[in-house]
Amino acid sequence: MEPLYEGKAKRLYATEDPNVLRMEYKDEATAFNAEKKAEFENKGRLNTAITLAIYRMLEAKGVETHIVESIDDTNILVKSVDILLVEVIVRNVAAGSFCKRVGVEEGTAFKQPIVEFSYKSDELGDPLINDDYAREMGLATPEECAELKEKALVINEVLIDFFKRAGLKLVDFKIEFGRTKDADAKIVLADEISPDTCRLWDLETGKKLDKDRFRQDLGGVMEAYEEVLKRVEQIS
Amino acid sequence: MEPLYEGKAKRLYATEDPNVLRMEYKDEATAFNAEKKAEFENKGRLNTAITLAIYRMLEAKGVETHIVESIDDTNILVKSVDILLVEVIVRNVAAGSFCKRVGVEEGTAFKQPIVEFSYKSDELGDPLINDDYAREMGLATPEECAELKEKALVINEVLIDFFKRAGLKLVDFKIEFGRTKDADAKIVLADEISPDTCRLWDLETGKKLDKDRFRQDLGGVMEAYEEVLKRVEQIS
Ligand SMILES: Nc1ncnc2c1ncn2[C@@H]1O[C@H](COP(=O)(O)OP(=O)(O)O)[C@@H](O)[C@H]1O
Ligand SMILES: Nc1ncnc2c1ncn2[C@@H]1O[C@H](COP(=O)(O)OP(=O)(O)O)[C@@H](O)[C@H]1O
Ligand SMILES: [Mg+2]
Ligand SMILES: [Mg+2]
Repeated sequence: MEPLYEGKAKRLYATEDPNVLRMEYKDEATAFNAEKKAEFENKGRLNTAITLAIYRMLEAKGVETHIVESIDDTNILVKSVDILLVEVIVRNVAAGSFCKRVGVEEGTAFKQPIVEFSYKSDELGDPLINDDYAREMGLATPEECAELKEKALVINEVLIDFFKRAGLKLVDFKIEFGRTKDADAKIVLADEISPDTCRLWDLETGKKLDKDRFRQDLGGVMEAYEEVLKRVEQIS
Repeated sequence: MEPLYEGKAKRLYATEDPNVLRMEYKDEATAFNAEKKAEFENKGRLNTAITLAIYRMLEAKGVETHIVESIDDTNILVKSVDILLVEVIVRNVAAGSFCKRVGVEEGTAFKQPIVEFSYKSDELGDPLINDDYAREMGLATPEECAELKEKALVINEVLIDFFKRAGLKLVDFKIEFGRTKDADAKIVLADEISPDTCRLWDLETGKKLDKDRFRQDLGGVMEAYEEVLKRVEQIS
């Protein structure tokens, strides 16, 4: 069966229900807008399990997500949504592109979280944009931008607490939202939350337990993801 | 006499009054964060006269600026202010870095103006930031960001109308604000507004009459600045 869409980390398949898609998590890893690529055994399985645990926890806290149900180790049924081409990034501690962009040292903690938008475009390298860009490019209305920020900050609060209980510091993360196709269309959390899309540092040692191990060639990439899953399962 | 500060386009000198600086406009032109450089005879004089005419017009419309008084062809006395390290860019039509960043075609008119902030840092290439960045980097409070946007949009409205009367379309512009050092410190428009800092297209022909002639090697750079001054003087 041909996927409807094959992305860098997942494949989407149609199901009998037009409102439901099967999302398959792949073992491939990419970084720096797919300039760097590798395959990691078990990555699909680990990210499936981590995302599922996190999304179930978020649902229990009142955050609506696209999750319908788990199928197997690497497949989840999700609501088919229209993904907003605005990626939402929340930062609690300076890292990654933030540091490069403005010359702030990695590890600098923010007093309040930073929320930023990037235009979801592989071709353009997911550039940083602002609300006015989103409005003029037809990506999201000002009201939707406000809603995305509000939702992202709620999710951040819940995740900070969740990961803290797992002995992890939530440095930053990227999320995607989609518009459901129901009559009462609403914006729900879609895509994934995993060590591919979060920066997670061990609370005690500061050890990086996320995709930066791949980006920065630190080794032990899947061991880190295994560790995250283990801790997430312990507190779930 | 040594300047207190020498920038890419201007020099600042102390005066007897500690609250007043002499701003001297140079003939040098730079583009692409000073990777491209040239000297243009008369540029200092032209930008002095254009900025002065525009700032006087803005003052008459109730916009507070740093201008104290004109001294000669290339020197203006200005209030000494603490420049906010947030550059404010207003865009009415897509051009320049906007087009490159998000892949939109030059000339695309916006329904409403786009306001954006960049971090004033030559070293970092004046990167795009948002209000949260400004807050966490200590560049401007959220209230100040709102004030900057509000002031920038007022200035945009006034300038659009002004340049229209001069037969020019205001595509975009960059402005800088500073905090006055008085007891009742307030934020005023500082720096300059000239063909170095605006994109101006002839309303009829679309001809570029601004620094893009230098950036894009279109020739007739100073002829374009002369033309802008002539038209600005005609309506002032
Ligand atoms: N519920 C959903 N419905 C439709 N598309 C989704 C949903 N959740 C995520 N997507 C999209 O599916 C793709 C997921 O695959 P991924 O490998 O992450 O792709 P990409 O390389 O574009 O990031 C992304 O484009 C994502 O926006
Ligand atoms: N009223 C003012 N008081 C103090 N500094 C100012 C004032 N107006 C402008 N400036 C600053 O003076 C410098 C002007 O010179 P310029 O050649 O444009 O410098 P730059 O290369 O930093 O852009 C800028 O750094 C600008 O922020
Ligand atoms: Mg993705
Ligand atoms: Mg300057």
